[in-house]
Amino acid sequence: MAKKVTIGIIGAGRIGKIHADNLLRLPQVQITAVSDLFAGPELIEWASERGIAKVTKDSSDIINDPSIDAIFICSSTDTHVPLIKEAAKAGKHVFCEKPLSMDIGRTEEAVQAAEEAGIKLQIGFNRRFDHNFKRVREHVLIGSVGTPHIVKITSRDPNPPHEDYIRVSGGIFMDMMIHDFDMARYLTGSEVTEVYAQGGVLIDPVFGKYGDVDTAIVTLRFENGALGVIDNSRQAAYGYDQRVEVFGSKGSVAAGNDHPNTTEVSSAEGVTRDKPLHFFLERYNEAYIDETRQFIACLADGQPLPVTGEDGVKAEMIALAAKLSHQLGRPIKLSEAAQLKREAEGMESHV
Amino acid sequence: MAKKVTIGIIGAGRIGKIHADNLLRLPQVQITAVSDLFAGPELIEWASERGIAKVTKDSSDIINDPSIDAIFICSSTDTHVPLIKEAAKAGKHVFCEKPLSMDIGRTEEAVQAAEEAGIKLQIGFNRRFDHNFKRVREHVLIGSVGTPHIVKITSRDPNPPHEDYIRVSGGIFMDMMIHDFDMARYLTGSEVTEVYAQGGVLIDPVFGKYGDVDTAIVTLRFENGALGVIDNSRQAAYGYDQRVEVFGSKGSVAAGNDHPNTTEVSSAEGVTRDKPLHFFLERYNEAYIDETRQFIACLADGQPLPVTGEDGVKAEMIALAAKLSHQLGRPIKLSEAAQLKREAEGMESHV
Amino acid sequence: MAKKVTIGIIGAGRIGKIHADNLLRLPQVQITAVSDLFAGPELIEWASERGIAKVTKDSSDIINDPSIDAIFICSSTDTHVPLIKEAAKAGKHVFCEKPLSMDIGRTEEAVQAAEEAGIKLQIGFNRRFDHNFKRVREHVLIGSVGTPHIVKITSRDPNPPHEDYIRVSGGIFMDMMIHDFDMARYLTGSEVTEVYAQGGVLIDPVFGKYGDVDTAIVTLRFENGALGVIDNSRQAAYGYDQRVEVFGSKGSVAAGNDHPNTTEVSSAEGVTRDKPLHFFLERYNEAYIDETRQFIACLADGQPLPVTGEDGVKAEMIALAAKLSHQLGRPIKLSEAAQLKREAEGMESHV
Amino acid sequence: MAKKVTIGIIGAGRIGKIHADNLLRLPQVQITAVSDLFAGPELIEWASERGIAKVTKDSSDIINDPSIDAIFICSSTDTHVPLIKEAAKAGKHVFCEKPLSMDIGRTEEAVQAAEEAGIKLQIGFNRRFDHNFKRVREHVLIGSVGTPHIVKITSRDPNPPHEDYIRVSGGIFMDMMIHDFDMARYLTGSEVTEVYAQGGVLIDPVFGKYGDVDTAIVTLRFENGALGVIDNSRQAAYGYDQRVEVFGSKGSVAAGNDHPNTTEVSSAEGVTRDKPLHFFLERYNEAYIDETRQFIACLADGQPLPVTGEDGVKAEMIALAAKLSHQLGRPIKLSEAAQLKREAEGMESHV
Repeated sequence: MAKKVTIGIIGAGRIGKIHADNLLRLPQVQITAVSDLFAGPELIEWASERGIAKVTKDSSDIINDPSIDAIFICSSTDTHVPLIKEAAKAGKHVFCEKPLSMDIGRTEEAVQAAEEAGIKLQIGFNRRFDHNFKRVREHVLIGSVGTPHIVKITSRDPNPPHEDYIRVSGGIFMDMMIHDFDMARYLTGSEVTEVYAQGGVLIDPVFGKYGDVDTAIVTLRFENGALGVIDNSRQAAYGYDQRVEVFGSKGSVAAGNDHPNTTEVSSAEGVTRDKPLHFFLERYNEAYIDETRQFIACLADGQPLPVTGEDGVKAEMIALAAKLSHQLGRPIKLSEAAQLKREAEGMESHV
Repeated sequence: MAKKVTIGIIGAGRIGKIHADNLLRLPQVQITAVSDLFAGPELIEWASERGIAKVTKDSSDIINDPSIDAIFICSSTDTHVPLIKEAAKAGKHVFCEKPLSMDIGRTEEAVQAAEEAGIKLQIGFNRRFDHNFKRVREHVLIGSVGTPHIVKITSRDPNPPHEDYIRVSGGIFMDMMIHDFDMARYLTGSEVTEVYAQGGVLIDPVFGKYGDVDTAIVTLRFENGALGVIDNSRQAAYGYDQRVEVFGSKGSVAAGNDHPNTTEVSSAEGVTRDKPLHFFLERYNEAYIDETRQFIACLADGQPLPVTGEDGVKAEMIALAAKLSHQLGRPIKLSEAAQLKREAEGMESHV
Repeated sequence: MAKKVTIGIIGAGRIGKIHADNLLRLPQVQITAVSDLFAGPELIEWASERGIAKVTKDSSDIINDPSIDAIFICSSTDTHVPLIKEAAKAGKHVFCEKPLSMDIGRTEEAVQAAEEAGIKLQIGFNRRFDHNFKRVREHVLIGSVGTPHIVKITSRDPNPPHEDYIRVSGGIFMDMMIHDFDMARYLTGSEVTEVYAQGGVLIDPVFGKYGDVDTAIVTLRFENGALGVIDNSRQAAYGYDQRVEVFGSKGSVAAGNDHPNTTEVSSAEGVTRDKPLHFFLERYNEAYIDETRQFIACLADGQPLPVTGEDGVKAEMIALAAKLSHQLGRPIKLSEAAQLKREAEGMESHV
Repeated sequence: MAKKVTIGIIGAGRIGKIHADNLLRLPQVQITAVSDLFAGPELIEWASERGIAKVTKDSSDIINDPSIDAIFICSSTDTHVPLIKEAAKAGKHVFCEKPLSMDIGRTEEAVQAAEEAGIKLQIGFNRRFDHNFKRVREHVLIGSVGTPHIVKITSRDPNPPHEDYIRVSGGIFMDMMIHDFDMARYLTGSEVTEVYAQGGVLIDPVFGKYGDVDTAIVTLRFENGALGVIDNSRQAAYGYDQRVEVFGSKGSVAAGNDHPNTTEVSSAEGVTRDKPLHFFLERYNEAYIDETRQFIACLADGQPLPVTGEDGVKAEMIALAAKLSHQLGRPIKLSEAAQLKREAEGMESHV
């Protein structure tokens, strides 16, 4: 068997624990340490059950541990950039949850630090690893739809997050639709050049309280001329709604939702099946497993990562443009980027 | 335009009127007469609205009308054989509803009379003209499924008929499943050699009162080695259920139900669509139109009919074998036919 | 039976002939005259086969015929407004194909003339009568989706029209997407207040030659706060693509395409079914029948029409706003209407 | 955490290894030993990677290991009965793959031995744990379909087994359809009282060489009056075909196949999706996990097992009846059981 890859986990919330368990399914992986600001008896027991020796409150204990090859950053967004820089300095590879930060300038610094240090940096755009969307991408690549003309992405959550989360989320474009911006780039293989964002507070006034919206439609223009549209809602009564379509010169390829079973009941009232899988843990379960598997495999064989820091920057740029579009009520070109960044910094400093 | 085909309708019940209206959509058809045992003012008005000049109680008035080219026999089953014989004698082409009779011997006499007289005789197996089943047959013919191995037919009515009908229907195999026996022959292009029938009175005891069943499963063996199964129910809560599947060496071709629309509602309770089209008038509307269109076209160009008297005999033979199988509790070979007929005659005379 | 409604047809192209044949299926309708600029022997034979007595090149012969109750205007778009005014003056009810004109001001004049004359004026937004979309509307009305938040409409043609048509079509927004603008109003029951249009020439440069696009995405904002998006393409390799979705507080209702049959082939290559119905004549066949049926019924019983002249004006306003949005590269508010009209007039006069 | 359950595995072929890996996902399970007639270096390495201490060729080493609580019997069918008896004597709980034996008499002895010893014995009818079929069963239990009238089960393999396997398989009814016989009992909750089996050699003559068939249709009659039908094929070009339907007085509940993704391509050729999951390892992956999870849970909390030895006997009885029906060409009542067994013994002794 190949040599072991030794991993440290920073941030032991829900997603950190999921990554840990998925990593432990890989025979070549060893997790030796986990850090969390609120580490306590519960985490110590959790770690012990999994044979993870070190539990600490201090992420530096992990980053500076010479036996560790790579770090999973699963802590809060504001810690991502400093931790990546620190890890880069220490020569550790990094898997980091999205977004890298709310500030393009700082995100770019982190990505640059990783590049300069020669470490590998993968961003947690897990949906690229979804069985349905991978198949759509394959069809686009092999030419099943010809030249892409229109991309449509639907992404709706079953329930809005708690107000505590809304307050610090960065807004629907940066927090939720950022996944779809990455998906748009992934499916078409083309860069977004312009966006126009429309939003509304239709579900809960609490979103408006923080200058956010709960429902949004964003249109995209791509470098290759294609057009795109994404719609987001924070609350779909029937569960998690995750669908995409790429339409092109030779036809269309579309992926629908996953359902818990194929069972249908036909009665005097109609024909009914169970609603889609409830939320991202159910829908993207295999995708989470696959993204860690590929990260580890790329570390082992030196192949390029499937999602790079650059991908993180690009998606954030689109999210920022969408946010500005919504605020200014006009389409925004991505080429206004330098200006965007400055405006954004100005805006951020007042929020 | 081609010369007109002049038609007389015998039997102006529901199906007779449907055939009449469908025929009137064809520019080359003229209906000049209609007969019904209970002809009265209502029928006279109906005929007048359609420009049908003659309304009579006596079918002979139609059969012996020298201006009439072809006759649609839509009267009760017991009249089919004598009317076909009479029409054959008069040299009129015939379209006759199924079954020709409840007695194979008499059915064969009618078919023979038609052949000897050189008239064309089409049987009303309308389902052969259904858009779904035609497409299945096309796929079988072009080899999409390779050599057929298994044929499955589901055929369920939304509601049981009235007791008055049950009493004289001839039983589920002759009255209802006969359509499926014809479908089995049509889809495979092979003859049935053996049947085994299972039945039960699960919906309404009234079926048992007349020695009939309301639920039945019949397995088939075909000349070419393929196997088949048909299931019938007199009552499907969700409407008319008409599905077929042909499975073979290269794959499978299956046709599902038609629905009134494609609309689906996704809610907290699940994903729901409207149930299938309610009954045969909705489902086979286009098929009824097409079977008359093809009958008229074959009269015009002298091409062979799409459903012949021989097809009527074959389906009745299978129905009779199924009925015997159910009564005797054992598989019945179609090659026991001569014997079957005699037994059947003995049986019929006691019913 | 109710008294006959006497109809004259102006314009005997494809759609005029379809309306005529659909009208002839209605027992209470009599078509007594048809006019066409290019009336000749072919049209005379067509009319004679249908018992239509008068064939003329002059539409005034029809409008001024005192025996005629209502007129179907199926001639070219530029004739719609003058013919409606003339018919209004003559007191004839009018069914007119969409759009009423390319000029909002003139369209409003026509609608006003109809109102002042007290004649009924129905616009040919046939898709409102489609079995799928009607069912979606019913679900919205009975509250199956709660308050609408997002409306999505996909509308793609199988093939682009001929250059001769493109040159005079008025552009994708006025010629093709106008149906979808009407659909958006119909499905939500709410007015559009703002649009943003994106377009591209991705299929054939000929569209660019006339300042038109062949692919477009338009986002909508509705009075009730809902958001919407429409995508159009002039060429879908797999046929006519006509789908809608209304998403709201309680769930979603969506209608997919109609297919010619339900037959599916499963083979070593995958599971395949036939592509959707090819184009509008196939898909909206029943809808065309139904819109004429309802028009006639409303004339008979004096009920309000299902699609009014006002609906025609509203859809044109949205189309105009979309066209301007595309030209100016910014969102356009419908409340800029007065200004829009003037700008539009200025623009039209230079085209 | 609950106390550990210590497991020994007998038979380390494909299914034995799958069960082992699934068991190792359960925190309360410890596998301490594995035996296989052909144990060698490969198995030792496999065991070592999983922390399984003991590897042996002798199953008695496992059965008589006092530290072991329960045994998974995954060796060849002929060893099942003696191993169950031995385990019963040693007081170990047993999970045993199906069928228990090819001989009802011996199967009953094993089940009786388990009962007398008070050990728990679960049979490997994994399909009961499939997400689709569980949902069908739930719907039957909550009355969604009312009283069951018709049960239909389709079960087709993607490829026929190797001749070596065919020779000793016990035939299609005992080897393959036995799963469907169990499914029929599970879905209806009713016992089978009569079967009629039809079979053919349509795929490969090698089946005929061993008196076996490769294609079969079996009809069932249930104690509660319901009817059933199962169709089996050893070769479906499109992959594993596993569908069920229960039709009853209030409607129908049906489960279709699982597909690897929901992606559909629409092109000029039609609409295509990927074929179903290839075979049982893919389709029943989660079901295998769930059956071991439930077995362990029942050991822990003393609850009744989800599949009992009695279930194994019942399914074998139906399989035997089907085999006899096919050989004798007539329906067979399950109440002919005593006689069946004797006949079967006579038959077995001559095969």
